[in-house]
Amino acid sequence: MDAEDLILISVDDHVVEPPTMFREHWPAKYADRIPKVVVSEEGGDIWEFEGQRAPNVGLNAVAGCPPDEYNLDPTQFTQMRPGCFDVHERVRDMSAAGVLAGLNFPTFPHFCGQYFGRIDDKDVALAAVRAYNDWHIDEWAGAYPDRLIPLSIPPLWDPGLMAGEIRRVAAKGCHAVTFSENPSKLGLPSYHTDFWDPFFAACVDEAVTVCLHIGSSSAMLSTAPEAPPEVMISLTPINSLMAITDILFSGVFTRFPGLQIAMSEGGIGWIPYALERADYVYEHHHAWTGTDLGDTRPSELFHEHFWTCFIDDAAGIEARERVGLDHIMWEMDYPHSDSTWPHAPEQLWKAIGGLPEGDIQKISHRNAMAAFSFDPFAHRPAEQCTAEALRAEATDVDITIKSMGRRKADADAGALAARLAAVASKGAAPSGD
Amino acid sequence: MDAEDLILISVDDHVVEPPTMFREHWPAKYADRIPKVVVSEEGGDIWEFEGQRAPNVGLNAVAGCPPDEYNLDPTQFTQMRPGCFDVHERVRDMSAAGVLAGLNFPTFPHFCGQYFGRIDDKDVALAAVRAYNDWHIDEWAGAYPDRLIPLSIPPLWDPGLMAGEIRRVAAKGCHAVTFSENPSKLGLPSYHTDFWDPFFAACVDEAVTVCLHIGSSSAMLSTAPEAPPEVMISLTPINSLMAITDILFSGVFTRFPGLQIAMSEGGIGWIPYALERADYVYEHHHAWTGTDLGDTRPSELFHEHFWTCFIDDAAGIEARERVGLDHIMWEMDYPHSDSTWPHAPEQLWKAIGGLPEGDIQKISHRNAMAAFSFDPFAHRPAEQCTAEALRAEATDVDITIKSMGRRKADADAGALAARLAAVASKGAAPSGD
Repeated sequence: MDAEDLILISVDDHVVEPPTMFREHWPAKYADRIPKVVVSEEGGDIWEFEGQRAPNVGLNAVAGCPPDEYNLDPTQFTQMRPGCFDVHERVRDMSAAGVLAGLNFPTFPHFCGQYFGRIDDKDVALAAVRAYNDWHIDEWAGAYPDRLIPLSIPPLWDPGLMAGEIRRVAAKGCHAVTFSENPSKLGLPSYHTDFWDPFFAACVDEAVTVCLHIGSSSAMLSTAPEAPPEVMISLTPINSLMAITDILFSGVFTRFPGLQIAMSEGGIGWIPYALERADYVYEHHHAWTGTDLGDTRPSELFHEHFWTCFIDDAAGIEARERVGLDHIMWEMDYPHSDSTWPHAPEQLWKAIGGLPEGDIQKISHRNAMAAFSFDPFAHRPAEQCTAEALRAEATDVDITIKSMGRRKADADAGALAARLAAVASKGAAPSGD
Repeated sequence: MDAEDLILISVDDHVVEPPTMFREHWPAKYADRIPKVVVSEEGGDIWEFEGQRAPNVGLNAVAGCPPDEYNLDPTQFTQMRPGCFDVHERVRDMSAAGVLAGLNFPTFPHFCGQYFGRIDDKDVALAAVRAYNDWHIDEWAGAYPDRLIPLSIPPLWDPGLMAGEIRRVAAKGCHAVTFSENPSKLGLPSYHTDFWDPFFAACVDEAVTVCLHIGSSSAMLSTAPEAPPEVMISLTPINSLMAITDILFSGVFTRFPGLQIAMSEGGIGWIPYALERADYVYEHHHAWTGTDLGDTRPSELFHEHFWTCFIDDAAGIEARERVGLDHIMWEMDYPHSDSTWPHAPEQLWKAIGGLPEGDIQKISHRNAMAAFSFDPFAHRPAEQCTAEALRAEATDVDITIKSMGRRKADADAGALAARLAAVASKGAAPSGD
């Protein structure tokens, strides 16, 4: 077996929503209020809906772009690979990189639909969430049931509506929903309340896995105003560490023993440490804090409830038994700046090539199939699913890195970092993910 | 070889300063302004100096105390083991736990002297810092040169004064200084400025290792107001992860290739991941950010400049080559709540007992000797330094856990966590370290 024999399912890629997305899914009664793409003062293509704007930030769509043209400017659709927003081109880009299937997170609504949560008229906001999900499930993922795993966004402001939407889209075969790694940072009740219980109950009932992408709290760690962007970008996975620690001590799994959570773009190398630490602290402190997880240690809860993923993470693979081999998944992060596209199989092979074949199959695709109730082999024979077979179907795709005519970023580390922080705090995709 | 054959140097313990500490070291001209211990309204013993108060928080002195008596109340000296504040009893407690030597961080001045930085009259504040260091070096550590590694605190408000103090105490044989993991969070210039250069220059000149203890930024990570204390306590080592990421990208090592930094109480299991992540981000992003570390990757800088330590960290030991075997040290954390006292050798043995003997010697004491220019064997033959030999000298020390008559904490998770955050933000020791 070698890199070309891998069958790859990426559990964290991103769709840049096309301007036409709502056309077939928007309710007639709100016809004049349909979300639109407009050109901003700075010349970028941005979404506008009910007075709220959301730019596509440059770093969010850099597949195929030379690194010195990465920047934080609002970007035009003409400055991206069409694979960012056109599903047919997306699938061709996936084939060219030897990747069978992907789970695509939203861009303009932010990682868990924060954008729609800011719309004042909640009736039209709910209409937008439903239209978004119908587009994503029926039109985007639905076009290639063997290649795209459907993912819904929630109407974040109302757990009852969230539960209803989970049940509605589950009936269409959607078994993944994106939610916040820390709703408290969004000004919503935390995991330590029962506020979200109707939502979690629906997820358990419908076998829907809750995906928590880094940045879905709209809060990023930073150290100092002058720190270069690399500091903030390096720290993004720590959002996942904070989230699992928070959730493990929340008691939510006592109420929902069936709840399954996938950490998206959090990496895995830090997990053994975080689990040991949580166990140590629980053992040393629960006698005075009164925290009660029953007879279960935090690390045991983790292995029962969490799914993880990585892009490139040798230390985590080395420690895979401690991380939880049956729950480790892989991601490509197309078209973001941390992506390994178009050399994903070769890059992944460096980390997992030496493992037993059973471990490789779990990490490359088997665990993802289990996490998201997704079966590509029902649509496509396994022998046509390897990197080699897929690449053979897409030999005409141009994968060379070439200028997209973007402005070079100003080389002022502090100013760049400040812009990055501003982008993140508005709930847009943070740089590097 | 077994647990009792270990030679143990702990690079992170804590002294609760005795009320008499300034008596022999305070300058006559400020006689009426000497810092004093007074009894607070709530009945705790607290330090008072120039109108600033600093309590000894309960969690900071719990060695020998049953866990259900841990709390956040200001504590009296009579509610602690004398080993917290009496150097002779401290050394007896160390012997009873089989520990040869320790490096003791301050308590009431906070981890890097933040308390003295808040005193308005900087002349009397500098007098206090110098008196503190004279007491610590001459009277506390000086009483047992084979058992205690001297550590100075800096006059944080002035890098020129800091440099002078480094040179003054180095002449007395002190090769360790405590500083802030993130001065930016203290309202001071960050590592990304040249503000601290005189201080770093003096440390390099005098072979002084800079110790950054978790909490020395007076800023702790938290997730949500209702999260139980375990969440914040579990996240304390992430302060170290943030600090190394921040410092690696600061350029400070380009200016000071000889600078040595010890991360105190940060743990080690997360290090392989943090280094891989920093390298990956640097490689993917420096072309647009303009960050320039020369030909050196962040992970290479780490291995040249950082020393690490752990209490109980099986994943980190397993990954010791990635962490950096020549720079891993061990700590007991006496008398804090995460301490393994009095069973330190047995607890450590579980993690390192299976390693090659050379690795064990490095981790248990050899690396600490190198990091702090400390040679206990100049004072005491090695065969009298083992856990077994030391315990034989202290068979009369009572190490049983017994009530210290402390109040039980109120079992309200959110209220406890809020108090913990308040304690941490004032610069006092955060819970759990």
